[in-house]
Amino acid sequence: MKGEIKELRDMLKIFSQIGADPAGGITRLLYSDAWKQAQKKLKNMLQAQGFNAYYDDVGNLFGLIEGTEDKEELILTGSHIDTVRSGGMLDGQYGIFASFLAIKNLLAKYGRPKKSLEVVSFAEEEGSRFPYAFWGSKNLVGSANKNDLSAVVDTNGVSFKAAMQEAGFDFANISQHPAKKIAAFIEIHIEQGAVLEHAQKRLGVVTAFVGQKRFDVVLKGTANHAGTTPMNLRKDALEGASRIIVTLLDKAKKIGDPLVLTFGHIVNKPNVVNVVPGEVMFTIDTRHTDAKMLDLFTEEIFVTVKKIAESLDLICEVNKWMDELPVPTDENLTNTVMEVLQENEIDFHIMHSGAGHDSQIIAPVYKTAMLFVPSIDGVSHNPMEDTKIEDLENGVRALEAVLYRLAY
Amino acid sequence: MKGEIKELRDMLKIFSQIGADPAGGITRLLYSDAWKQAQKKLKNMLQAQGFNAYYDDVGNLFGLIEGTEDKEELILTGSHIDTVRSGGMLDGQYGIFASFLAIKNLLAKYGRPKKSLEVVSFAEEEGSRFPYAFWGSKNLVGSANKNDLSAVVDTNGVSFKAAMQEAGFDFANISQHPAKKIAAFIEIHIEQGAVLEHAQKRLGVVTAFVGQKRFDVVLKGTANHAGTTPMNLRKDALEGASRIIVTLLDKAKKIGDPLVLTFGHIVNKPNVVNVVPGEVMFTIDTRHTDAKMLDLFTEEIFVTVKKIAESLDLICEVNKWMDELPVPTDENLTNTVMEVLQENEIDFHIMHSGAGHDSQIIAPVYKTAMLFVPSIDGVSHNPMEDTKIEDLENGVRALEAVLYRLAY
Repeated sequence: MKGEIKELRDMLKIFSQIGADPAGGITRLLYSDAWKQAQKKLKNMLQAQGFNAYYDDVGNLFGLIEGTEDKEELILTGSHIDTVRSGGMLDGQYGIFASFLAIKNLLAKYGRPKKSLEVVSFAEEEGSRFPYAFWGSKNLVGSANKNDLSAVVDTNGVSFKAAMQEAGFDFANISQHPAKKIAAFIEIHIEQGAVLEHAQKRLGVVTAFVGQKRFDVVLKGTANHAGTTPMNLRKDALEGASRIIVTLLDKAKKIGDPLVLTFGHIVNKPNVVNVVPGEVMFTIDTRHTDAKMLDLFTEEIFVTVKKIAESLDLICEVNKWMDELPVPTDENLTNTVMEVLQENEIDFHIMHSGAGHDSQIIAPVYKTAMLFVPSIDGVSHNPMEDTKIEDLENGVRALEAVLYRLAY
Repeated sequence: MKGEIKELRDMLKIFSQIGADPAGGITRLLYSDAWKQAQKKLKNMLQAQGFNAYYDDVGNLFGLIEGTEDKEELILTGSHIDTVRSGGMLDGQYGIFASFLAIKNLLAKYGRPKKSLEVVSFAEEEGSRFPYAFWGSKNLVGSANKNDLSAVVDTNGVSFKAAMQEAGFDFANISQHPAKKIAAFIEIHIEQGAVLEHAQKRLGVVTAFVGQKRFDVVLKGTANHAGTTPMNLRKDALEGASRIIVTLLDKAKKIGDPLVLTFGHIVNKPNVVNVVPGEVMFTIDTRHTDAKMLDLFTEEIFVTVKKIAESLDLICEVNKWMDELPVPTDENLTNTVMEVLQENEIDFHIMHSGAGHDSQIIAPVYKTAMLFVPSIDGVSHNPMEDTKIEDLENGVRALEAVLYRLAY
C-alpha cells in the first residue's frame, strides 16, 4: 500500500506542475499549452504501462487494455484533465490517475482482464475557457453539436475552432457516434462538498445528479431620499428582495434535503447609503434530484416573488434561464458497485451529486456509476482544495475492486 | 399676483442657466466659476433693489435692509446657492429668491421695516465639491473649524483653501464669531420628500430636524458550492443580511413615524450565481426627531444583528460612523409663524425634516424657523426636481407674511 500511495503522490506532484498558475493553483484550460502538455504526459505514461493510447477527433485521450475473452465489452473509467482558473490539484485529474493506477494494479496482480478496460482523460468539463461545458463527455456520447460552437470565442477572442485546430484536433464526425460500445462507465471524483466529511465517511456512491434551475429576478420600486421619505411612502426594492430571500429559504429548509436554494448574486441600485433602493436584481439557483419536486418548488418561487412584490407595490420580473433535468446513475450498476464495496469491507455513504460531472452526460446513454472521495472542508475550485491521502488511496482501492468485478 | 409669479419664474430661469450641466440639471459647486457668477448676479440684483449687498470672509452673500427703529434687531432669511451635481433648479436657490422677493414686496407695499431685514445666500450646504457640508451656515454661527479643512481636496486634487482663495475669499476670523446679532432666522426650502403631497398641503412648518446615525455591518460566513453544500451545512452571509433587514424593517414600521430606517448600500461576495455568499457588507441609516428614541432603536440594531448572526453561525461587525443629534426649531418663533399663517389663511402641515438644512446648523445658536413647499413626487437632487409654480408663489406669500410680522 505504501508504494501505491507514493505512486499517487508522484502523479499529483508531476501534474500539478503542468499549468501551475502564478496566481496559485492550476490553470489548465482546454487546448492551451498546459493542456496539451498534460495530455501528452499522460499518453506517454499509459504507453509505458502497455496501454494502447490514442486521441479521438476532439482530443479526448484513451488508454485501452483489450480483454482476453470478451474484448467488445468495454469498461470505461476516468474523468477530465482540464481545470478552472486557479483550480485545485484534485478536481478532474484525480479520477484519471485513480483509473490508471487501479488498472495498473489489476494488471500487476491478475494479468489482462477478460473484458476490455479503458482509461479516459476527457478533454474538457469545466467550461472555464469557452462558455461551453462537458465538451469531452458530450463528444463521447455524440451530444455535442458543432453548430453551437461556431460563434464561441474565449476572453482573448480566439475562436473555439481555431484553438482546437491549433492543438491538432477538429470537430468529431457526428455520424460515427456513439463511437464506442461501452458496457459500463465508472468515474471517481472529489466530492467538492462536505457531506462525506460530516457523515464521517471516506467514500460516496452517487445515485443521482441533481436537476438545476436558475432564475434572474428584477424588482423595481422607487429610489427615494432616506431622510424625507416616511416608511409608508416607500417602494423599497431591497426590502422586497430580502423578504423573498427569507421566505424562500424558510420554505426550502422546511422541504429539506436534497433541495438546495442559493441567492448567489445581487445588484442593488443606486446602492447609496442614504437612498432607498429603487431597483434590485438577484439570482436564484435551485437543485433537486427529483424533477417533479424541483418543478413544484419553481412554482413556489414564482408565487412568492409575485406575492411579496405586490405587497410592497414593486414591479417584478422573473426570468428562468437554466433548466436541467436530474439524471440518475444506473441502478443495477450502482447496486453492483455497492455489493463489491461491502464484500471488500469498504465503508460508503449513499448520496447524490449537487455538482455537474461528466457522468451525468454519459449516464443517459451508457450504464454509469460514480464514486466520491471526501473534500476537506468541502473546498473546491480553489488552490486550497484537498483530500486526505489515505482517502484518495481508499478511492483507488474501491475503484480497483469495482473494475475487478466488472472486467475479470 | 400674476406679476409676482412672473418675477419668480424669471429668477428661476436666469439662475438655472448659471451652471447648467450638459449632463442635465445644474451643477454649481462651491467656489466654481458658475458659483462665482451666481453670487455676483445675485449681488447685482440685491443692489439694484436698494439692498446693502456684501460678502463675508468665506463668500456668504448678504443683502441688508436696515430697520428704521431697531436696526440692531436683525431678521435673517435665505438658503444656499450651491447645488449637487446635476441638481434641480429649486434646492437651495428657491429659498434665496423667495427671501429676496418677499422683502422686495414688503418694501414696495410698506416701505422700510422697523427691524433690519437681511437676505443670505449661503456659500455652501451640499458637500458636493469637497467632503465637508454646511460650510456657509457653519461660518455664520462660528462652528466651522479651518483645521478640519487643511487636508481637504476636491476630486481634481484642488485644495479647499486654494479654491477659496482663487474665488477671492479666505478662512473667516473665528474670533469675530458670532459675527451678527440675529433675532431670528427663517429659511424656506423645497421639502425633497412627498409628505406634503400625500397630506395634500401646500406648506410645511418644520418643528425639528431628525437626528441621524449611520452604520456599516459586515457579516462573514463561508463561500460554498451552491450544489454540493446542503442547506444545513451553510453559513450564508446574504441570508444573514436579509433576515436582519426584514427583522429591523418590521420593528421600524411597528415603531412608526418619524422613525425611518434605510438599507441603502449592499456588497455581496463573491457575488456569483452558484456560490453561497461568504461575506456581505451593508449600511444602515436611521433617523428620528427624538434622540432617546434613536438611541433605543440603535440598541435594537445591535441586538438584532448579533442575534441573527449568531443563529446562522456568522461573524458580525457593526461600526457606527455617523451620529448626529436631532435639532428642534425654536418653539416660540415657530408658534409665531403658525399664528401668522392662520391669520393669513395659509393652510399648513406641521412636520419634521428628514433631510439636513442650514437651519439645523443655525437653530442651536439663533432662533430659527423653517418652511417647506411641496416637491412633486418627492423628487430632489435630480434634474426632474419640481414644484408647482402656485406652491412656490404660496411659499413667497407665507414668508412675506412672517417677515412682516417679525420686522414691521
